[in-house]
Amino acid sequence: MSTEAPTLVSQSKAHGGTQFVYSHESTACGCTMTFAIFVPPQAERRPCPVLWYLSGLTCTHANVMEKGEYRRLAAELGVIIVCPDTSPRGDHVPDEPDNWQFGSGAGFYLDATAAPYAENYRMESYAMEELPALVAAHFPADMDRQSVFGHSMGGHGALTLALKHPERFRSCSAFAPIVSPTMADWSKPALRKYLGEDTAAHRRHDATCLVEDGARFSDFLIDQGTADGFLQEGLKPWLFAEACGKAGVPLTLRMHEGYDHSYYFISTFMDDHLLWHAERLV
Amino acid sequence: MSTEAPTLVSQSKAHGGTQFVYSHESTACGCTMTFAIFVPPQAERRPCPVLWYLSGLTCTHANVMEKGEYRRLAAELGVIIVCPDTSPRGDHVPDEPDNWQFGSGAGFYLDATAAPYAENYRMESYAMEELPALVAAHFPADMDRQSVFGHSMGGHGALTLALKHPERFRSCSAFAPIVSPTMADWSKPALRKYLGEDTAAHRRHDATCLVEDGARFSDFLIDQGTADGFLQEGLKPWLFAEACGKAGVPLTLRMHEGYDHSYYFISTFMDDHLLWHAERLV
Repeated sequence: MSTEAPTLVSQSKAHGGTQFVYSHESTACGCTMTFAIFVPPQAERRPCPVLWYLSGLTCTHANVMEKGEYRRLAAELGVIIVCPDTSPRGDHVPDEPDNWQFGSGAGFYLDATAAPYAENYRMESYAMEELPALVAAHFPADMDRQSVFGHSMGGHGALTLALKHPERFRSCSAFAPIVSPTMADWSKPALRKYLGEDTAAHRRHDATCLVEDGARFSDFLIDQGTADGFLQEGLKPWLFAEACGKAGVPLTLRMHEGYDHSYYFISTFMDDHLLWHAERLV
Repeated sequence: MSTEAPTLVSQSKAHGGTQFVYSHESTACGCTMTFAIFVPPQAERRPCPVLWYLSGLTCTHANVMEKGEYRRLAAELGVIIVCPDTSPRGDHVPDEPDNWQFGSGAGFYLDATAAPYAENYRMESYAMEELPALVAAHFPADMDRQSVFGHSMGGHGALTLALKHPERFRSCSAFAPIVSPTMADWSKPALRKYLGEDTAAHRRHDATCLVEDGARFSDFLIDQGTADGFLQEGLKPWLFAEACGKAGVPLTLRMHEGYDHSYYFISTFMDDHLLWHAERLV
């Protein structure tokens, strides 16, 4: 696992801290990866807790960095925000360029086991091992205080990684997450292509199944808009709520009248999520 | 002047209000124009004041809408934010496609008088007459309470329009504005192409010259980053400060260590500007 210093792509001062973008050669993904990291002003004096933001389908590190509106409050709370890319990238990485729900931009935060994807699509190893090691080595981060959140496919990533690694994260939240990719028509083909036909493997990458199968986490916050075009057919947060209810896993699920799936929704509730995490991180 | 209802392009609920994008056929510019308008929740009960945001070179209505981070506080303060495009658009509109400082995306908020630009490049009439009439006719706007701000070329627009129409605007502020386009190498060619060689006409579209020539406004707020790559050669806010000082025009010019010309800078100080305007609007 390489912890060579990453290459600075850009940096801009914002709200007293700095919004950086870096690239680096990823061993896990076998390609150059790019990530955004916001370092708050408090980091000049002491290591700061780390909050991971996992983005949704079609996104890169840049979408939430530009539209997520997290810097004002992160700078106030003293939290580092890391925004990884959503998949491996590059001409040599197998892809289905016309399919926005699979391949490039759609890594699903899992380690693929099926050919030809197993070589590069190792986003769980990337997000859980390689990038944290790099952040620990090169930024003023207190790695004993980490939390995770995300949107849509990134909400799926946040929920599943927290359930699989409860010792790693102090808290977990999600905006309009995919809570049961084994059930939705848009995500089932991706799981088959990444993981093969073994449905037991699929269940290990499905937050609802994980809870049903015994995984636990301290408590979850989920925000969901009622005008989200993906809600009824794809997202169905009530599936996760039902599993959490049966298992006794605390979940705060808030439905918000009239909100859609966009960054206008995410940015509206960003402050609430940052405060949720800060209470558990600081 | 047409006040036909504009065509809805998109709408998303945000912070309890709605971020709309509309298009309409502009008589002033002889083309289809697009604008963004954020309507705060208070507009359900009463007309709200209007704050115009004028964007900089290369921008459309979308840049500040996505990256400006104005909705949270605008929703709290009850202010409508209108973000026009920066120039006429369309295949029939004369342009210099490889020149980012002139033509498409670079209308300089003036009415061109020189051929072939005089036909479409009428952004002053658009921003001061046509679009306000449309907003007054179709949105819950209190047009007796208007203010204006902007960034870079849009800061130039805000300052010059306020100086030329002090009765229209309660307040004016700018992020890293072009304060003297008659002096800077990047803007002098644009003024010549839009207005011809008559330098007296150029002075009427230069905030510093306008103050020198007797125009007045109640007070200005300008924020400027010291790490802005355009500061030394192009922006030079001290030219405007000197003119305001001599003329007794109140100006708060704040230099911010380490900030650049980007939306990371704009969004950092967005709240300060919204509060500046709200104090004078509400």
